[in-house]
Order: sequence, then structure tokens, then C-alpha cells
Amino acid sequence: MNTLLEPIYQFLPCKTPHRWVEMAIANQALLLIDHAHCEKKAASAAMNVIYHYSQHYDLMQKMSRIVREEMRHFEQVLGLIQKRNIDYVTLTPGRYAKELHRHARNDHKGRIVDLLIIGAFVEARSCERFAAVAEKLDAELVEFYLGLLKSEARHFEIYLNFAQQLSQEPIEERIQLFAKIEQELILSEDPLFRFHSGVSI
Amino acid sequence: MNTLLEPIYQFLPCKTPHRWVEMAIANQALLLIDHAHCEKKAASAAMNVIYHYSQHYDLMQKMSRIVREEMRHFEQVLGLIQKRNIDYVTLTPGRYAKELHRHARNDHKGRIVDLLIIGAFVEARSCERFAAVAEKLDAELVEFYLGLLKSEARHFEIYLNFAQQLSQEPIEERIQLFAKIEQELILSEDPLFRFHSGVSI
Repeated sequence: MNTLLEPIYQFLPCKTPHRWVEMAIANQALLLIDHAHCEKKAASAAMNVIYHYSQHYDLMQKMSRIVREEMRHFEQVLGLIQKRNIDYVTLTPGRYAKELHRHARNDHKGRIVDLLIIGAFVEARSCERFAAVAEKLDAELVEFYLGLLKSEARHFEIYLNFAQQLSQEPIEERIQLFAKIEQELILSEDPLFRFHSGVSI
Repeated sequence: MNTLLEPIYQFLPCKTPHRWVEMAIANQALLLIDHAHCEKKAASAAMNVIYHYSQHYDLMQKMSRIVREEMRHFEQVLGLIQKRNIDYVTLTPGRYAKELHRHARNDHKGRIVDLLIIGAFVEARSCERFAAVAEKLDAELVEFYLGLLKSEARHFEIYLNFAQQLSQEPIEERIQLFAKIEQELILSEDPLFRFHSGVSI
């Protein structure tokens, strides 16, 4: 497991604060519901890339496989939600994805690179959080989250590799910019508890 | 193969005219490109149902599996497009899906029923067309289209069953309405050749 997590810890600007983990343990139903929404949204984001960047066969093939994988995970989380008699309610989206996307460039060439870098952060943070909560949950959820972690641990590198491939210049500066924003979103107080939220007020 | 096709022929209001098949044979590159777009759009339509009707677990699970299946087919068509050095260009959408959707009711309860009935027609027509063109193409495409046909032949019944489950009243009248519109779209002249177009002018 550590071999899987090491590159993720190296990529992310910080670890999830303990206060978020405590909130997650105390709000497992909400965590599962938002997680299901996240899997669905990750699939939509990958689909969106396919719609807008149709000149890159490898990118489309890989994104399509990611769509399938995220939807399979969506089905799995939904299965757990149903089994546990949790109401799958609609949730106000948290600030995380919205704030990251607000900083994406708007020109066609810059935008895809930024969307892929953001995708890398979302995927890496998700895995880091799977690991952070997994061991504190019941056996069924531990198995589930560690399974997801294994399955998604390499996603962030796929996103980063495509970002570099499609960029005319080195992407380190863009990565640093988003790392700074991401760290702020994870470490600062956040009024809404969600899968990717900051620390609760 | 006939056992698979029989329910589809019984459901659809008419068979594909010979003139469309001739156009398809003469425009195989265009057929493949539009087909790839169709698989992608079928996945998006199923995803859309998941986003808007989150109180129906069985519906969401089934739609999610359909998303995955359509995306797998998208990858396969895209693979063929790339292998054959065809340019995967953006295409103006044909009139078929747009015209069918124009007749969907707008109230929440009526809308999902109509969207599912439309889904049934799109799926059934796609299979009927896979069969109509398959035998006239090269060996690789024959195998591909017959494989898709086998894989997607039951989709239209999934859509119809959910439409009936979610409807307060019998859905026969709605089916008849969309059958009439669909027949008109398939049999009338159509300026744009597409996977679901009418007959070429």
C-alpha cells in the first residue's frame, strides 16, 4: 500500500488534516453520498475531455477507460448506500472542484492542460483520503476503500502525463499554482463537509 | 441472430430503407465517425438520466452499466477509425435525436418516461442498422457490427421496462406517438447522411 501511496504523497502539497478525518468518521453516510457524487462527476469530467479534445486518440481512449472505471465505482458506492439504507440525496457541491476550475485558463490549448492538472489533483487527493479514512471504518468499507485506492492510485499520473504531452511548455509552474490553491482548500476552514472539503469550522 | 432481431423488428415502426443502406456502404468513413459520436452520446444520455433521477437505484445502476458499455464501444469504434487512418472530425448532429427529444414532455414525471421511450427507439434503431449494413461490409466490420448487435440488442427493452415502471399510466400511447415520429424521420428525405438519418435527397 505504501508503494502505491508514496508518489501520491510526493505530488500533493499536504496531508489531510486530522480534523477532516474525524468529521468523516462521524459522518459516514454523508461521506458515502458525496463519494458517489464524486465518482459520477469524475466520469463526467473525463467525458467532457473526450467531447472537447477529439484530435487526441490516446487521450480519448484513456479518458473513456477512466469514465468506465469511475462509473463502476459509482455503482459500487451506490450499492453500499442502498445496502445501508442511506438516502441518496442531492448535495450542494463543495467549493473544492469549483475553486480549482476557477483558475483554469480559458484559451483552448491552456485549458486542456489545466483541466488535466486539476484532474491529477482531484484523483491524487481522493486516493490520499481513501487511505486516510480506510483504517478507521468497518471491515466492509476498509476493503472497499483500499480496493478503490489500488484501482485509482495511478490515475493522477495519467492526467499529469497527458497534461505534459499536450503542453507547449513545461507544466511545473502550473502544477505549483494549483498545488498552492489545493493546499489552501484542504487546510483552511470550510463551512461544508464533503469528500474534498477543508477542515470544519 | 434472427432471435435477437425479431423483438427489435416488432418494436420499430419500419425497416431501414434500402437507399440509406446504399449511402452507408458508400460512406463508410462517415458512418464510423458518426457511429463513434453516437456511442458517446448514448453514454451521455444515460449519464444524464443518472444525474436527474437519483431516487431510482435500479435505474441508476442499469444506466451506469449502459454508460460503461457504450464507452467500451466508443473505444472500439475509435480504434477502427484510427487503424483505418480516418480523421475523427466533429460532425453537425443529424435531426433524429433532436426531433425525437422535441416531443418529450417537460414535467418531471412525464419527461423521464419519454426520455426512456426515446432511448428505446434509439437503441432499437441502432441495432436494426447494425444488422442492415453488417453483411455488406468487410470482414472486420461485419464482426464488429454483429458483436455490437449482440451486446446492445436487449438495451431497448431495458429502457422500455423502466419507462413503464416509472409511469403512472400505461405507456402505449406515448410509444405510438414516438413510433410515428420515428417512422417519419427514417422514411422521409434527409439532407444530412448520418447513422440515424432518413433517406438521402
